[in-house]
Amino acid sequence: MRIITRSEIDAVLPEIDLMAEIEAGFVAYSRGESVVPPVGELLLEDPPGEVHIKYGYITGDDHYVIKVASGFADNARLGLPTSNGLMLAFSQQSGELAAVLLDEGSLTDIRTAVAGAIAAKYLAPSTITRIGIMGAGIQARLQLEHLMGLTECRDVLVWGRHQERLDRYTEDMGRLGFDIATTTDASGILDTCNLIVTTTPAHEPILRSSGGLRGLHITAVGSDTPSKQELDTEILAQADLVVADSIAQCVERGEIHRALRAQSVAKPNIVELGQIIAGDAAGRTSEDQVTLADLTGVAVQDIQIAKAVLGAIG
Amino acid sequence: MRIITRSEIDAVLPEIDLMAEIEAGFVAYSRGESVVPPVGELLLEDPPGEVHIKYGYITGDDHYVIKVASGFADNARLGLPTSNGLMLAFSQQSGELAAVLLDEGSLTDIRTAVAGAIAAKYLAPSTITRIGIMGAGIQARLQLEHLMGLTECRDVLVWGRHQERLDRYTEDMGRLGFDIATTTDASGILDTCNLIVTTTPAHEPILRSSGGLRGLHITAVGSDTPSKQELDTEILAQADLVVADSIAQCVERGEIHRALRAQSVAKPNIVELGQIIAGDAAGRTSEDQVTLADLTGVAVQDIQIAKAVLGAIG
Repeated sequence: MRIITRSEIDAVLPEIDLMAEIEAGFVAYSRGESVVPPVGELLLEDPPGEVHIKYGYITGDDHYVIKVASGFADNARLGLPTSNGLMLAFSQQSGELAAVLLDEGSLTDIRTAVAGAIAAKYLAPSTITRIGIMGAGIQARLQLEHLMGLTECRDVLVWGRHQERLDRYTEDMGRLGFDIATTTDASGILDTCNLIVTTTPAHEPILRSSGGLRGLHITAVGSDTPSKQELDTEILAQADLVVADSIAQCVERGEIHRALRAQSVAKPNIVELGQIIAGDAAGRTSEDQVTLADLTGVAVQDIQIAKAVLGAIG
Repeated sequence: MRIITRSEIDAVLPEIDLMAEIEAGFVAYSRGESVVPPVGELLLEDPPGEVHIKYGYITGDDHYVIKVASGFADNARLGLPTSNGLMLAFSQQSGELAAVLLDEGSLTDIRTAVAGAIAAKYLAPSTITRIGIMGAGIQARLQLEHLMGLTECRDVLVWGRHQERLDRYTEDMGRLGFDIATTTDASGILDTCNLIVTTTPAHEPILRSSGGLRGLHITAVGSDTPSKQELDTEILAQADLVVADSIAQCVERGEIHRALRAQSVAKPNIVELGQIIAGDAAGRTSEDQVTLADLTGVAVQDIQIAKAVLGAIG
């Protein structure tokens, strides 16, 4: 049994083709080659915290994986990371613990950002003119960073509630070569950006459609519970293509869950990201289309990134 | 963050008053002072394995606990332990990982046996004349061992399917001072024993009532899933008192779940072990009564044993 530290994980990550690994996970999931039970969820009140347990296995793999990831929003005020957690790999043959990956939640953050990049790869318009980012936290940084290899666009409009956080974001992401404009008013995002990533823990819509949408893609990353919501359901109603990372999960949590309840979308019209990656369903078919990917985070992402890290460490 | 090994855990266990700790957990649970989400379950087919994730917290504690316990029955043939797993303690304040308890499933085995002893303490007839044990594995050993402090009875009838396993059981438990008789025919157990503990992974009833039951207590430990069953539901129908470790869990899994479906018991008549311990519900009120405790295993047991181990290690 191996205990793998954060620094060991950080050291091998650059060697891994994360896009390929996570894409393979989504394909296995959509083809029914994995076992992924419902997400475990533990909520704390004082201070507010939420813990997600995602777990399962890909048939025929060496390991099953149990991943714990927490979000404690008030940690930011204390100068502590808001994300935390670890991943565990066990033998599918015997149940023996094979490895503890002490990633402190970082692998969850990264596999989430990689999934955003995969959604953009298959769904964004071929020419991205401006990237819109909702939120200015860790995931808002990682999502943008992981888009760098997919587009030459460096023009970014970032929305947040707090100017000082937006200023820090501008400084950090500017260093990577992005030209960042900031706003505390979300109303211009849908009109000026054609690739938008939403990364906030909002419980009320922060993006609302003001009229006819055209030629854009939205990746919704922030809502991963039944109560969180970043998008007005009208946006989903206007989308030509609504994509779920997992239909089973998205009917229970996230933007699609809300839109289904509001009857803004119908379940038979939703396709899975893994189907598009595999070529089993069509992605974007024209530049004018409005596409939306709702990413609630699926255990196959955790399984794949844990497996890749274990493989790279050897 | 601490990594605690099996040998460190084994070293401090004798210092801990496990009965008191687990009793306090059941009381906190039944009084609504804990948060315990539904059990997470992962099933494997080849080889057959089942993994349970039990997790939650007691309000006001330092930590929340996530416990993983697996059972891989075919491991026995390979000379490997059938139980495995670990426990994780995280800060309720920040989500930070506080400790990894590498117990290899042993703390789950022990807290299960302690719960059996607690059930016997509150529910068994005051004079135990003969103990009946169904099964001859780890839990069949631990349950009997944990009854030693509660009764002077050393007369035991153990049932199992395989004589060689029964012989090993006789040898092992004989060394502790028990006088063990073995049988591969379960029909005499209910007539000759007045404290019975069932510890098998049976999916069909192995104990059947052949007539009027009188003056005995049964603790059913083996069934912790919707499909496992050790007791004919008629036994529950004849019981004067049916006790659940967790009513919420027992309506979904275990013997009570089966008996509810067969309408052999009615939910309003079921009481929780924590209510009896707290004195909020009556336990056994006469020697003639037939009582039954269905123990599916509740996260508060894991929380309490993890907390006690961490406290003892200091």
